[in-house]
This record gives sequence, C-alpha cells and structure tokens, in this order.
Amino acid sequence: MTVMEKPTRKGRRRANHGATSAGGGHAKQVNYRQIKNPFPHHRVVSDDQLHHIHATALRVLSDLGIRVLLPEARQLFRSAGAKVDEDTLMVHFDPTMVEENVDRAPRSFTVHAGDPTRNLDVQLGTLLFQPGGAAPHATDLTRGRRPATLSDFRDLCKLTQAFDVLHMFSALVEPQDVPTHVRHYEQMRGQLTLSDKVPHVYGRGSPQVRDSFELIKIIRGLSDDDFRACPWTYTVVNTNSPRQLDIPMAQALIDFARAGQASIVTPFTLMGAMAPITVAGAMTLSHAEALAGIALTQIAHPGAPVMYGTFTSNVDMKSGAPAFGTPEHFKASALAGQLARHLGLPWRCASGSAANLGDAQAASETQMGMWGCVLGGATLVKHAAGWLEGGLTVSYEKLVTDVEVLQMVADLCHHTAADEDEIGFDAIAEVEPGGHFFAAGQTMQRYQTEFYEPMVHDWANFGTWTERGSHDATARATEVWQKIVAEQTPPTVPHDRLEAFDAFVARRTEEGGAPPES
Amino acid sequence: MTVMEKPTRKGRRRANHGATSAGGGHAKQVNYRQIKNPFPHHRVVSDDQLHHIHATALRVLSDLGIRVLLPEARQLFRSAGAKVDEDTLMVHFDPTMVEENVDRAPRSFTVHAGDPTRNLDVQLGTLLFQPGGAAPHATDLTRGRRPATLSDFRDLCKLTQAFDVLHMFSALVEPQDVPTHVRHYEQMRGQLTLSDKVPHVYGRGSPQVRDSFELIKIIRGLSDDDFRACPWTYTVVNTNSPRQLDIPMAQALIDFARAGQASIVTPFTLMGAMAPITVAGAMTLSHAEALAGIALTQIAHPGAPVMYGTFTSNVDMKSGAPAFGTPEHFKASALAGQLARHLGLPWRCASGSAANLGDAQAASETQMGMWGCVLGGATLVKHAAGWLEGGLTVSYEKLVTDVEVLQMVADLCHHTAADEDEIGFDAIAEVEPGGHFFAAGQTMQRYQTEFYEPMVHDWANFGTWTERGSHDATARATEVWQKIVAEQTPPTVPHDRLEAFDAFVARRTEEGGAPPES
Repeated sequence: MTVMEKPTRKGRRRANHGATSAGGGHAKQVNYRQIKNPFPHHRVVSDDQLHHIHATALRVLSDLGIRVLLPEARQLFRSAGAKVDEDTLMVHFDPTMVEENVDRAPRSFTVHAGDPTRNLDVQLGTLLFQPGGAAPHATDLTRGRRPATLSDFRDLCKLTQAFDVLHMFSALVEPQDVPTHVRHYEQMRGQLTLSDKVPHVYGRGSPQVRDSFELIKIIRGLSDDDFRACPWTYTVVNTNSPRQLDIPMAQALIDFARAGQASIVTPFTLMGAMAPITVAGAMTLSHAEALAGIALTQIAHPGAPVMYGTFTSNVDMKSGAPAFGTPEHFKASALAGQLARHLGLPWRCASGSAANLGDAQAASETQMGMWGCVLGGATLVKHAAGWLEGGLTVSYEKLVTDVEVLQMVADLCHHTAADEDEIGFDAIAEVEPGGHFFAAGQTMQRYQTEFYEPMVHDWANFGTWTERGSHDATARATEVWQKIVAEQTPPTVPHDRLEAFDAFVARRTEEGGAPPES
Repeated sequence: MTVMEKPTRKGRRRANHGATSAGGGHAKQVNYRQIKNPFPHHRVVSDDQLHHIHATALRVLSDLGIRVLLPEARQLFRSAGAKVDEDTLMVHFDPTMVEENVDRAPRSFTVHAGDPTRNLDVQLGTLLFQPGGAAPHATDLTRGRRPATLSDFRDLCKLTQAFDVLHMFSALVEPQDVPTHVRHYEQMRGQLTLSDKVPHVYGRGSPQVRDSFELIKIIRGLSDDDFRACPWTYTVVNTNSPRQLDIPMAQALIDFARAGQASIVTPFTLMGAMAPITVAGAMTLSHAEALAGIALTQIAHPGAPVMYGTFTSNVDMKSGAPAFGTPEHFKASALAGQLARHLGLPWRCASGSAANLGDAQAASETQMGMWGCVLGGATLVKHAAGWLEGGLTVSYEKLVTDVEVLQMVADLCHHTAADEDEIGFDAIAEVEPGGHFFAAGQTMQRYQTEFYEPMVHDWANFGTWTERGSHDATARATEVWQKIVAEQTPPTVPHDRLEAFDAFVARRTEEGGAPPES
C-alpha cells in the first residue's frame, strides 16, 4: 500500500519538521491512517469455557428467546425458520440457523471514505479509533458544560478531521438547537463537508436513513449502484438488553444490510443492571443478542457488512451508576475478543470514563479501557477520545489529551527496527565511557524523527513550566483545539455537489423532514 | 499458599465490607500481596534480532570494554579472566566468562519481609510494584512542592505500608533536613518501624551499608547467619552509562552479594543522551552494562541474588529533557523483557512521568509506562506510584491515584471465573426481556464483592459530583492520604529491639555516622 509510506502525523506537522525532512534515510514514518495491531491477545477464559459460553448463548436464543418489536424483523426471522409468537413478540432461534446465518457475514470489508487513504480496512487485526459519541452535552474550559449545539457538532467534526488517528466519525454530540426532524441533515452536512472521513448515520427510522444515504451519494458523487456496491457509511445498533430488539434498531439492521452499508450490533450491557453481574454471564447475554442481530442482517441481505459489537462494563452496586475503564470492563473486552475470534468477525469495543472532568481519573479510566480493547484485539475502539460522564458529555480538551495517547499507541503499533543500523555497535563505539550521545553520528542522522513528538504532553522542567504559567495538560489542550477550529481548511467538495446537497435538504425540509421513529 | 486466600484489599476495607462478608460462597477474593502476571508478552524484535542484540552486547564488553573505577572490582574481574588496563581503568570481558558468571545467578529467590505474607517471590512471572523513589522533592496539594524532609519520608513510609499493592519500599524521597552522615539511620528507622515490608538500602559506601544491615538484623531479630542465609533487603545499582561503573555502585554490588542480599543492576539509559538514539541500540548498551554488573555479583559471591534491571526511555531532542511513558520507553521495556527471558533472570523495569503535576498527562504517561512493564513481563515495576518530574518529586496525591490503577491491574491479574455458576443460564432466564438484574438472585449473592471498588475514582453523576464540591481525583486523593497518615497504626516491633535500634544509632552517631562515599 503506497499510503503506508506517506507521513501523516499531525503532531509532527505542528512541530514544523515533518518525517520527510530527516536526513540519512533513517526517517521513521508512522502512518496513523492505517494501523495493524501487533499486540498479543489477552485471554481471560479457557477454550472450553469459551465454547461453553457460545453454546449457552445459543441456548439463550433457543430456550429463552428474544423479544423483537418490529413486525418485519419477526417476519424475516420466521422466514429463516425461527419460531415466532405474535402475542408475546418472542422469537426462538434454532442454533444451527443462527450459526449458518452468522457464517454468511463477511470476514473483512472496506468502508469507503471521501479520501481513499482514509478507507477503513475492517477485519480482525486492524485497529480503528473513534472519538466519543452520542453525548447530549459538550464541555470545554472556556465555555463550561452545556447542552450541545450545532456549533459544537461542527467544531467536533473539524477536530475529528484534524487527527489521523481518529479514523472515522462517531455520533459526536447531539446538536440540541436543531429540531429533531431536520437534525440529521445538519449531522450529514457537518460530517460530509468538514471532513473526508467515513460518516456515521443514526438508525432512527427508515426516512432519516434514506435521506442520509442520499446525501452521501450527492457529496461523494455516487450513483445508486455505486453506493450499493460497497459500504460508505455505518450505523451502531444497540439491543435493549436484556433480550429485546426495538423497532428503529431492527429497522436499521434491515435497511443498512439491504443498502450494502455496514452495521455494528452492540448490546450495551452493564453488569449488574441490564446484564448478569459476572463477566462471563454478561458476555453470554451480550453474545446471544449480538448473534441474533447479526443473523438478522444476513437474513435481510446475505453477505451484508456487519461487525460484532460489545460494550460491557459494570455499575456501582451502591448507586447503580455506570462505570468504565474498570477491571470488569477490561475483562469483558478481552472475553469479547475471544468470542469475536471464535466467529472470525471484525468487532467493535469501547473505552470511556465515568469522570466528570478531564482529570487523572478520566485519563486513567480511558487508557485502561483502551488497553482492554487493544489487548482484546478489537478492530474498532469507540469512545476512545473525549468521552466523559459515561457518555453524557464530550470534552474538547479531553479529545485532545486522549488523542495524544492514541497517537502513542499508533507509534507502538509501528514496526520496531532492530537491524544492524539500529543495534549500531559503531554508534556505541563512538562515545567514550561516561560521555554522551547527543552529537553522535547515529543521533544526528535520526534526531528529527526517531521519537514520538507530543502535542500536549510537556516535558519541561518545573522551573520552565512554572514560568510558562503552570498550565496542566487540559489547559494546554485548549490552545490545540482552538487553533484547529479557527484555522482548519475543510476538504474540497465540488460546488455542484454542495448545491445539490442544499437543494435536497431544502426540498425535504419543505416536505417536513424526517422525525425520528421509535 | 494459604496467603492467597486472605482478603487484604485496603479499598474493600475502607468501603466497610470485606470480601469475606459476601454471601453464598461467591465472594471474589483478590490478594494484592501476591500477584502473578497473566498477560501475554509483547515482543518487539524477532528471535534472530534478539540474539544479535545479545551478541552485540557481548562484543561491546569484549571489544570496547567498561571503565570500572573501583580497584576491588577490577581485581575481581581480573581474577575471573577479564583483561584489565590499570592506566585507563578499562575492563575487557571474554564473552564466555560473562555468560558463565551470569548463569550462576539464581532464577528465583525470596526476599523476606517483617511479615511473611509480604515476602517477595522474585522470579519471572510474578509482578511487584514500588512507589516512586529517590526524589529530592515532595509535593501535595495543601503544602505545595518543597525540598523533601524527614517528615515527608516518614509519611511516605506510612503510605507505602498502607497499600498492599505496593509490595516493597523504594528510596521514596530524600529527607534533606537530616545530615547525610546520619540520614541512612532515619531512612532505616522509617522503613523498619512504620512498616513490615522489605526495605531499600542505598549503596552509598560500605559503612552505610554495614550500618543498615545491622539495623535490619536488630529489628527483624536476626543473627548474622540468619541474615546472610537469605535476602532481607535490596539495593539498586545504576551504571554510569555509557560504559562506566563508579566506586560506590561497584562496592554495593560486591557488599550486597557477599552478604547474600539482593541487588538490581539497572543501567539508566536515556536514548539520545547516555545511550544510542534507537531502541535497539540503547538496549544493546544497557544489556552490556547489566551483564557486566550481574557478572560482578557472581564473581564476588556465586549464587548471589540479583535482578536484571533496565530503565530506558528517551529525551526530548530539542531540550534534552527526559521523557517517560513514551512509545520509545514502552518499546524499550518490551525489548528488555525479551532479553531478561533470554537470560532467564527476574528483572526490574519502571514506569514514571515527566509531568509537573498530577494531571491527565501524568496519569497517561504513568499508565503507558506501566503497561510497557507489564506486557514486557517485568517482575518488578519501580516508580509505579507518585513519581513526577521524571523522578524529581514524589506527590502524595499522585501516589494515591496511581495506586488506584495498580489495584485495578492487580484485579486484572486475578483469575476470571467462568464456570457454570458465572455463565449462569438460570440468571439470564430469571430476568424478563427489557428487565433488569439488580434484584436477580445471582446479583444478590455477589454484589458486595464482584466488582473492583474504587478508592478515589468517583462515578457519581455530574449533579451529585457538583453538589459535593466538584473535586477532581487529585483533590479527593488528599483526603485519602491524610487519613492514612493521621490514623495508621504501625506494625508492632518488640520494645527491646526498638531500644537496641536506638542504642546502635546513638553509638554510631557518636562515632561520626557514615558519610556517603563517591
């Protein structure tokens, strides 16, 4: 892939010396746009236990069943051989039928972006990060915490675009100042005109989904056939754990599958609340629900692109408050990875924090959750930057400080060269005992690109740091995001496409837009 | 080991319901005093490259040599067959001699504590954490950053004692208000009377070391033979990279080996400064120096307990400032783990942060460095809690917030049960679709102990957190450490031993104490 050779590190650019400027052919080049996960998988259960969990999940589907609220989904399940009770809305699944349908899902697929170097290679082994998503609030140090607005949504589109290590959009924040029947037009406008990354579409009923698909076709310049030929967007479907699939969620699985677009089936299962209190129990329930959802996509459209999704953490048993970045969250992620590999499907996981501001707790929990995902071998880590209060708020500053960590992880994923040149006996021989390597030949050849260069982490000594105003990392992050929001040039979109976008939105708004369905 | 059954979690105790109080025989019991590392090893170089690095390190020792400043050490090396030039003080080592001597070092040993449940099982596969050490400054939110005092040293002894997940002492902070010729008496008094964990002894010349050994014998009630029979303390020896071993460091290796006490040979190699700029090059130099130091211990006393040590990170190439918790630090730790396993020796690594306060940067860097150690398979992680400014300051609050992370890691190291009871088909069957598990039987049986219970992480929602004063994690940590310092009861030491301790110190002080040697 030629894109692997292209230095694209924002941190490097900020520092005013790109990877290409290093001398001697020793420039380390890390491509944040395409990351392969080199870490070994952490396994928390034995293979026998894993098979038992899978078998128990199938038994949950056959003996206990899932309540499916959408008539069309029940009809599809019935057509595939499931037993459906139209009084109770319960669907009972034959295990073989589930496994056969899940087996139809592709092991890998590519989601296409506006810029092909930002295409997503979705399979086990690749590593994708998303900013925190779906928050009703936004916060930053200058304006404080408030209900999110369209202005926040657009600012966060710019920030998502700015960092190569954020590979695709999440739902970011809810622009609460835009009425819900036209909100999706502004969500698509922000994602499609301020960025060339893969956009997210909410599954809030077929009319909104159809509108959003049309807007993607307009901006990307796609015919209906072009669009249907491969995924250009994705949605996340949360089951209503335990054992329930609601109307808009089931509809989204069907709509996305039939349109050839990607869906992620993610039971959001908090241990002790919507799921059993044990890691193994919660993941058994989550696995059952994910299998049912994935099966639905394949019944609706065999071969439809779909990801296995999990988001299992625990609650505080004293208050019921959700917690993230805990040992239980980490273990559930690792177990989910074992289950995903058992299926062979790409899978999404999530980090996150329950902290109320971007402090040490927030940083610790987010990184802990992230390592659970990375060591679990997740394809996609959602909520990897900026997510506070268990998803109720996205913080501008935390987005920046978390991106710093994600960039370091991307550097860790980069090959460590250890050939003759790097081992460098001659370099060691060049420096006398007790001397220093600052001026050594090997140092001079490599000093511009050998090390990760931080964006907000400050290594100045206490005196210098104090003279500069004693700013903590969050305060320093303000400067970073404000500069991006103020100065970023959006990717070029042909004028006629922008006009067509506006015309479509005007017409549909005139027609009443598309209120969310429930 | 019966100790594995004993619940010893401070966080649990604070929360007023110990693991033993849970009903139904389902209590999860995590013993923070004895941790095995269940994580797979992250490898950054191939086996071929690893062997090449080892071979190059031996070539550094044979062709380039090490400058050894202590005559006795040169004499020992000569006696073992090394070539010594008494004009340049350079020692050149035959590779076979180095390997044969390193092979004499034990693969595992036990360091004995005052309380046997705190004994240290030192070998590959176990996981030990230490607080940050050797800092000239201390800081906390109420008193600010200042030169450390004896009061700080003693407070930090109490904090080290308070948390089971801190397995042994580091050097903590320098009590700068105590003159250097008697400072080691107060350091031993703090460690030995405020704690029953394994103490640290500085290698600052034979007189101080002899004094410290005597004080350990007094407090532990040991004869000379008892003491010599197994390790009761340890020291850390830093080589003066590149390729130099100074007088007190070499003396400490000899003194500790002959007394049967443990030493850790740790080249402190900052890439681009005291070591080559590449990960592979810096680790080649570090490996060479560690091999020479370990060989010295085995020449002085075959079978002496010794750990392979590494502390390799990078500097900021613009300012020369040290950095920690970087991708390069992480990769060096992982490579060090490969080298340690090649030797089969227990090894120490270190996390840490260059941040100037306990902010998001400090938390991110410290956890990143910690994962480098844990995924590298380190036996001992030094500077795992409280270390700021690259070791110039220990923060009371950061010690607490870092311990929170270490406790979560300890929980992750605990077996994840996934038998019939945990998978729990019946528990899933008990809850209706769309219902909740708060009152389920399985939940009621396990809710008191199933989840990690945080010490400073706050999962309250934004409204509740605001009502409580909007304190960040660092502010909340103040309350935790102040309570421990104010209320902790030190372990009991027989009165006659305390009297003997005082008498020894009085006599030696009268004699002039023991100034540090250099």
